[in-house]
Formats: sequence, C-alpha cells, structure tokens
Amino acid sequence: MDRRSFNRRMLLGGAAVATSLSAAPEAVGTSLRTAPAGGRIRRITLYAEKLSDGRMGYGLQRGKATVPGPLIELTEGDTAYVQLVNTMDVTASLHVHGLDYTIYQDGTRWSWSGVQPGGTRTYIWRTHAPGRRADGTWREGSAGYWHYHDHMVGSDHGTGGVRNGLYGPVIVRRVGDILPLRTHTIVFNNTSINNRPPHSGPNFQAALGDRVEFVMITHGDFYHTFHMHGHRWANNRTGILAGPHDTCPVIDNRIVGPGDSFGFQVIAGEGVGAGAWMYHCHVQHHSDKGMTGLFLVKDRNGTIPTYEMHQREHQQQSQDGDEDEGEGNGEGNGEGNGEGEGEGE
Amino acid sequence: MDRRSFNRRMLLGGAAVATSLSAAPEAVGTSLRTAPAGGRIRRITLYAEKLSDGRMGYGLQRGKATVPGPLIELTEGDTAYVQLVNTMDVTASLHVHGLDYTIYQDGTRWSWSGVQPGGTRTYIWRTHAPGRRADGTWREGSAGYWHYHDHMVGSDHGTGGVRNGLYGPVIVRRVGDILPLRTHTIVFNNTSINNRPPHSGPNFQAALGDRVEFVMITHGDFYHTFHMHGHRWANNRTGILAGPHDTCPVIDNRIVGPGDSFGFQVIAGEGVGAGAWMYHCHVQHHSDKGMTGLFLVKDRNGTIPTYEMHQREHQQQSQDGDEDEGEGNGEGNGEGNGEGEGEGE
Amino acid sequence: MDRRSFNRRMLLGGAAVATSLSAAPEAVGTSLRTAPAGGRIRRITLYAEKLSDGRMGYGLQRGKATVPGPLIELTEGDTAYVQLVNTMDVTASLHVHGLDYTIYQDGTRWSWSGVQPGGTRTYIWRTHAPGRRADGTWREGSAGYWHYHDHMVGSDHGTGGVRNGLYGPVIVRRVGDILPLRTHTIVFNNTSINNRPPHSGPNFQAALGDRVEFVMITHGDFYHTFHMHGHRWANNRTGILAGPHDTCPVIDNRIVGPGDSFGFQVIAGEGVGAGAWMYHCHVQHHSDKGMTGLFLVKDRNGTIPTYEMHQREHQQQSQDGDEDEGEGNGEGNGEGNGEGEGEGE
Repeated sequence: MDRRSFNRRMLLGGAAVATSLSAAPEAVGTSLRTAPAGGRIRRITLYAEKLSDGRMGYGLQRGKATVPGPLIELTEGDTAYVQLVNTMDVTASLHVHGLDYTIYQDGTRWSWSGVQPGGTRTYIWRTHAPGRRADGTWREGSAGYWHYHDHMVGSDHGTGGVRNGLYGPVIVRRVGDILPLRTHTIVFNNTSINNRPPHSGPNFQAALGDRVEFVMITHGDFYHTFHMHGHRWANNRTGILAGPHDTCPVIDNRIVGPGDSFGFQVIAGEGVGAGAWMYHCHVQHHSDKGMTGLFLVKDRNGTIPTYEMHQREHQQQSQDGDEDEGEGNGEGNGEGNGEGEGEGE
Repeated sequence: MDRRSFNRRMLLGGAAVATSLSAAPEAVGTSLRTAPAGGRIRRITLYAEKLSDGRMGYGLQRGKATVPGPLIELTEGDTAYVQLVNTMDVTASLHVHGLDYTIYQDGTRWSWSGVQPGGTRTYIWRTHAPGRRADGTWREGSAGYWHYHDHMVGSDHGTGGVRNGLYGPVIVRRVGDILPLRTHTIVFNNTSINNRPPHSGPNFQAALGDRVEFVMITHGDFYHTFHMHGHRWANNRTGILAGPHDTCPVIDNRIVGPGDSFGFQVIAGEGVGAGAWMYHCHVQHHSDKGMTGLFLVKDRNGTIPTYEMHQREHQQQSQDGDEDEGEGNGEGNGEGNGEGEGEGE
Repeated sequence: MDRRSFNRRMLLGGAAVATSLSAAPEAVGTSLRTAPAGGRIRRITLYAEKLSDGRMGYGLQRGKATVPGPLIELTEGDTAYVQLVNTMDVTASLHVHGLDYTIYQDGTRWSWSGVQPGGTRTYIWRTHAPGRRADGTWREGSAGYWHYHDHMVGSDHGTGGVRNGLYGPVIVRRVGDILPLRTHTIVFNNTSINNRPPHSGPNFQAALGDRVEFVMITHGDFYHTFHMHGHRWANNRTGILAGPHDTCPVIDNRIVGPGDSFGFQVIAGEGVGAGAWMYHCHVQHHSDKGMTGLFLVKDRNGTIPTYEMHQREHQQQSQDGDEDEGEGNGEGNGEGNGEGEGEGE
C-alpha cells in the first residue's frame, strides 16, 4: 500500500468515537474520582436488533443498537436487572462473564434461558465484594473487566450472534477504584475491530493528560495480540500498579483469545506527548489486513501531531478527485466480521 | 443442532466422572484441610498401555490405564520414584513439567531416557520448598499445577503419544495450601477434551458448597480458551486470592496453548446456586464442534436444576425409540483426538 | 527421524552462541550484582543491513549485523539516542516497545519516522522510574523485557522487515534489579528461532550455577508456547519471586504471540544438574519441524552430560562419511523464516 492509500484508509476511522456510556460526572483538574460503595439496584433494558447492514447489536433504546453494545458499569454489591427485548426473528440471549446469576439466567439453550423473537426476559446479574468465608478463606470479589454476549444465535454457543455483533462490555468496580474520564471498548472479533470494515478504526480522541480507560474483548475463532503505541499498562485486575514495588509485568502487547477480556487506564500521552498513536493487532497478517486504529491525543492547542498533516493531505487528495470514500466503509459487515477468511486456527 | 440432539449429545457425558485420585480424607463440615509438610518418598508404578480403541494411557495398575493418566499429588519436599512399565510395542517415556530431575530422567530420545517395549525405567522426580540462596535471592518452590506426558512416541516430542492420550496431571502443593474435596482434570488435546468424542463431556458432579479443584492442561497443535460458566478463579499459583487487596485478575476465561497447565479451586455453586454449569473452549468453532462439558452442581435435595429436565426428556426420547446412543460414543478416538482436522495453527 | 539424524540436527546448533552484549562486568563467586541508578545518556548507532543470505539485521558496526539485533540494556532514567543508518535499498525504521518516545520517533509510515535508503535518523528513547503522579496514583516505571523492530519494510507494519530479521531485544532494569552473568535472546519468528534453519538451535552454553538470563520475543503470524526443560521462572516482571509468599505462578511453559516479550533468569542446572537441556516450542508440529534448541549446562569438570555422547557419536558418523553438514545450515533463510508454510492462524 502506498502512503496515500494508507492515509486514506486510516482516516476512514473518521471522527473519533465516544463510546463512554457511564453516567459518571467528569473529573475537574487532577482531582481523582473513585468508585463509590455499591449496593444499588440497576434496571436496564437492552434491545437485540438487526441493523440495516446485516449486523446485529444490543441497544439501550429501540432502534439505537450499536456494536459493541452499551457499557454496563457496576460496583461490587450492585444488582442489575437487565431486560432483554428481542426484536429480531431468531432466538437470542444474554450470557455474561464474571457476574453472579442462577442457572436460569445463563443465556444458553441448555438452560432454556433465551428469548424468542418478539419476547422479553429479565436477566438478574448480582455482584459481590471480596469477603471471608466461614472456613476462613478469601472469596474473590466480582470486580473486573467482563463482557456479555449472545449464546444462542446460529449455534448453541451463539457463534452467529457474536460474529454479527451481539456483544458488549461490563465493568464491575471495587469501592475506591479509580474512575476514568472516558471508557472505550475495543473488540477483536475474528479479523475485525468492533465489526467495522478493515482499515477504519475505530479511532478514539483524548486531550493530553486525560485518564482514558480501554476495555479489550476478543471474540470469534482467532487469537490476537493487542498492541498500543506509546502507552503501557500493568497486567493485573485494574491495569494500575499498586506501588513502586509491585512485581506485576508492565506490558504494551498481550495475547488474547475468544472470550478473553481485560482493561486498563492510561494517562493520554503521558511521557510521550500528543500524537496519533496507533493500536493494532500485532499478528502481522491481521494488522496488514486492517486490524488497526488510532488513539488521537490532542496537545494543549487542540492539534494532534502527525494526524493534522494526514488530514490536510487527505483533504487535498479529495479535491484532486482521486478519493474513494467507499473503499473502506462500503464493504459493510461482510469483510469486517472476518467470515470466509479461511483462516485455520 | 436442534434442542433434542443437543440434549442427547450433552447427556452422552453420562454419569459424572470422579477423577480424584488423591488419597486425602474428605473434609467434614467447613473444617479446612491444608497440605501437611512434605519430605515423603513416594513410590509409584505407571503402566503405559494401548487401549482397545487405539488410545494410549498411563495407569496405576496393569490393564487399568486411563486418559488422562492418574493424578500424582505431592507436597514440596517430596520425592517420587515413578517406575514406568511400557507394555506397548513402541518406545515411550515420561517427561514431567516443573519438577526437579536430572538430565537422565528427561524422558527424551536425546537423553536416552525412554523405555523400550516391555521395559521398565524409574524416573526420580524431586520437589523443593522456596528458599533463600547463598547470594540472598529467593529460589522459587516446586508448587504448581504441572503435568507429565510422553516425549517419544511418534516423534522426538512425543506427538503421537500425546495425541493418543499419554498425559496426566501432577500437583505439587506447598505446606499450608488449601486442599480440595475433589480434583478433576480437563485436558484440551487438539479438538478433544481428554481424548473423548465430541459433545460427550466429561461431566463432573459436586454438591452445592463443595470445594472442587480443576487442573487444566493443553496439548496438541491448537490454542484454546478455557471458559467456565458461573465460576471464576484468580489467575495466580493456586487460583485463590491472598486477600481483599490482592491485585491479581479474577477470570473465567483463559487462553492456553500446548504444554500449558494451571489449576484452581471453586466452591461449587457459590453465589450462583446449583445447576448444570457448562465449561467449554470459547473458540467458537471448537465449542460448536463439541469441546464442551458440564459441571453438575446438586442442590440440597440432590437435584441438579436444568439437568434433571434434560434427563427426563432424554429418557422420554429413548422410550419413543428415536434415540441413537451411538451418535457420540461410537466415534471412538478418531474424531476425539482431532486428527485430520486440517486446522492450521 | 531416527536417532542419528536427530543427533545430527541438534548438533547443527553447533558451538554455543554467546549473545550477551551487555558491557557489565562478570560476577565473581556468589557476589550479587545489581543494576545501578539510571540517568545516563546512551549513544548507539544501529546499521540496518541486508545479509548475504537474504536476511536483514541490525548491527552495532557496519557489516556486522546480526539476527536478532544487539541487546540494548538500559536502567530506568536512562535516555538512548539510537541513530539508525539504513544501508539497505528499502525504507526501514526502528519501532520500540515499552519505552517513552514522541510520535516523531514512532518508526511508522503514518508518522513519517522511517529512514530512506542511505539515510540516517536518530530515535530518542527515554525511560523513567515508577513515581507518584500529582493525583496521588502510581505511574508504572519503564522496567521490563522489551524489544525493537522495523515497522516499514514490506508493509505498514514492517511484515517484511520483521520476517527477515529486523528485530532485537531491549531490557530496561530498575535500580537494584539483579544482573545476570549472561543474557541470551530467543525469538520465535513464524516457525523459526532467530531466523535460523530448523533443527539448528541456537544452543546456549553455561556453567553449573551461572545466573543466566533469557529474553523471549515473538514475531510473525503464529502463536507459540515457549518451554524449557529442567528450569522454571516466575511469570512476573523479572521472572524472580519476591519471596516465599509471592503468589505469582511459577511456570516452564508460556503461550506467546507476535509482539509479546518477556524474560527471566535461571541458575543453570539448579536442582537438576548439568546436561543438555532442551528448550522448544511446545506446539507439537512446531517442535517436530525444528523449533528447538539446547541450553548446555557444563558440570564442574567442563563436561555436558548426554551432550558429549552425542558429539562423539556425531564425530564418528562424520568419519564414517555419512554426514551431511549442509542439511540444516544450507537451507538459509528460506525455510527458517517460515514463509510459504501455509499455516492458518
């Protein structure tokens, strides 16, 4: 690919996507916000829908489904009543990782916990703080970067639903956990990111110094390695080190497989400055095929070094008439979800 | 797959398999049992045998080989003299991960440490507790979830032996480690679990509140992601958190590759109740092909919610004459061990 | 493969390779050396070159490029000015993991930070110790086992450069980190180790009791599992446990994917004695194809149990005239870099 086609492709990521769905107030200055104690009841309605381009998504309102589905953010002790409304013509479900639910909320055909076309069902998800058991041992808490997905469409493991976009992030925080300014979700689903066409992001925008959180989920058939340029994280529950003597590895590249999820927070541009920082799958033929996006960090003047130049060049090319906007976006879901890729394992 | 065929397949896992081979006494009430100090000499004889269906296995008695082989459970400080009796017509060996042994016990052709047909050889495995070296640094202990396998049959890396079932679990405990009521072994070997036919488990049974341990081993050519419904574990040495401030991730899904092993304990149904909880590879085409089993947690009345209904339905179908018991079990080892799958990596 | 061809292949690893490029003085007796405080400016020139056999490498001197490239060893607080001289006929670059650099040093086409044929460019890499931020949170330090690689040759992700050998290790130490006697680099690059022909190592030599460090990097398209016989490490930042209560898993097998890197130190032969200890990818068809080498641990007399016998046998075979030295070495890069393997994922 020559530089100009490369530029065009990267720019197809377009306007940075704001995927934070947390209702939490924004931080002011450097005052640190932390998670309050849990114990709330949360009532959420999710609509499972077919999108016009063939994808499937979950949404908080009818006709507003997205891929990935909305972020559900809880604190240990919270309970979520998630009512799934299935507007599609196939049975779908909601299976969540990491949270507490009875077998009747498992979202599997085996447990008869799907939702038929036109039906609704309420899944009850509970969470709990760490605690000591009667036998003196420690029970782990629910805190973590988790996810929900269909477990019924296309196969007994939801292969068709997941392939088409029926997945989303769940974060369970522990009281005192540091809250980010913004949360973004990146799902490596077969050879797509978030079921988007290749070479089209998503791109995420931040100001220098923002505390930004990423939730990284994997689905499909393939393993991947998630790499981010210029930013690193600790390979633990929160991505944040407990202190200078914490022996946890700090990484910027991590192997992941279907069903895996993790998350971390970064200070945008910390120690490296503003810029258009790439993130991508580091499996070479995956990145070459377009599993790549940009973390756009603006400097104090609101400019994004290296990115602005691409945008100007991109604009110039468009005026010259050699632009092809359809190159990436027009491919829709077909290539984006990696079907027919013929990859082995 | 329609629901009835799905049910039949899952039920082929049949009676739950008790794979605990530990001689440890069962816990009474909530009294916690912990590992005693090591230092014992353990003498074990393992027979490498061909099973009638073409599989190969290790067993503690002649004619009693199983796949996986028997659990060998040690405490740091113990030494095991493992005599391998090779009843097969090909040279086989015993290679163990994680333990201390001289190069003459390596189980490789390179080190001339295999056992010819009809021969015997004693492998000496030592273990040690953590300790301080002369230079002041800490030496790690042997404690961990390890495994043994053939390193000679079919190739210099035992590809044929491992493919056919010559593998088993080794647990080395640290004094004070919490002991489970029961230990089960799950081996993802190519696209089989424990070299069983697809869609046939194994299933494992427990009573609500039992402390159950799983050892998870991977073999073959493929990566997998091990997922369990309704249960989680800490991604550390024991799977048990050290306390409420432990920063270790709690997970219910983990990417694994050949030679990997890990383990954890769960309290059956804790916070989620009884039920037929699935575990499976989360790689979509692996789960769809049948890399799935059930963790059957009985309630106080001895019933397993959702499972009993399947059994009744299953029984009804059998009476109706549309049952085909051979569907899964008749396929033997051929499909179970993933040969000829044509998967790439 | 019969034993004799196996022996010949393993011996093609030949004389053990000393890959340590650290200028640190050797330890005397058991006195422990630790990393001094950082803050130095390091000026390094790297030459990107085409080797006569088609491989590409980085070197510290013109005409001396190696695969992997030289170890760059820093301490937190150090800054490296790395001048890249591109002697090749294609644009190449230097992209580093884990360190601090501005977007103009990213080594990507997107950021215009490559080096044209015949050109030079200085990449500035900074490192930092852990510290407390203004908001009271801990910022992680730069310490870790990292790596650098081309990001331009053959694709926008350097697929051609990396495939051909443009990669090398970077270690950033924390003040007080234990220093090894010697550091070796093992790169699983597609189905080669260090772009060598199959079944040809590299082999590494040590005396019993030496503190030896391994940096393990993965590149290409495939996942692997790195396994070492007779030696283990903690799965944390340094590979060394913090103490007897450290809950970090101790492992001898680890799944890795492209872009991953980790490292660890072992005491050669500790608890297991001298010998020719294999290390290999545990993915069965990768090890069978030759992703294997030897860690040769000499005893007090300078002999390597099991290895000497192979050498004598090897020598005898050579005298018998049935030797084919070209079997492995003559294949050059073609097979070594795994091209045309037709492997899926």
